[in-house]
Amino acid sequence: MSGASVSDVNDRLSALELRVQQQEDELTVMKAALADVLRRLAASEASAASSTKKHGGKGEMLLVKVSL
Amino acid sequence: MSGASVSDVNDRLSALELRVQQQEDELTVMKAALADVLRRLAASEASAASSTKKHGGKGEMLLVKVSL
Amino acid sequence: MSGASVSDVNDRLSALELRVQQQEDELTVMKAALADVLRRLAASEASAASSTKKHGGKGEMLLVKVSL
Repeated sequence: MSGASVSDVNDRLSALELRVQQQEDELTVMKAALADVLRRLAASEASAASSTKKHGGKGEMLLVKVSL
Repeated sequence: MSGASVSDVNDRLSALELRVQQQEDELTVMKAALADVLRRLAASEASAASSTKKHGGKGEMLLVKVSL
Repeated sequence: MSGASVSDVNDRLSALELRVQQQEDELTVMKAALADVLRRLAASEASAASSTKKHGGKGEMLLVKVSL
């Protein structure tokens, strides 16, 4: 291996190590964002389920009949 | 290239190959999680849209029948 | 370093560069999808909060005043 190609290999290795590190950092940020989304989505689903139960499921039906 | 640097290059290549494989595995997990989120979010939006339509959009529809 | 191992190092570097590029492309797609999810989730939460406020929060508050 010539001196030029040794230097070339080192450059390519260093560039790859930098890109892989940057991707690890991005993955860490995205994992945190995705965990936040999952938490908020679960809360939203629980709230909607609770609201549906309270409202009797399908639509708001309200009949008040007052006979005197 | 000296024996030492050949070994060094091999070590760096092996370490990079391992990290890239781990990132591929993490990306696969995150893609599945994101697909799940998109499915649940679409269901939640469809449910909310259906609920809004049933409830007449703004405010609750209220029928009061008073018989005297 | 023998000719064979130089070729081997070049092959492994090229394969890694390809995989890292593919992961960068996937990360870009996933970041866009996650940004879309965050936007839709925020809209859904805002809509639910607005609906909850209109509906009086917990359960349906209903006041019917009948004057005879």
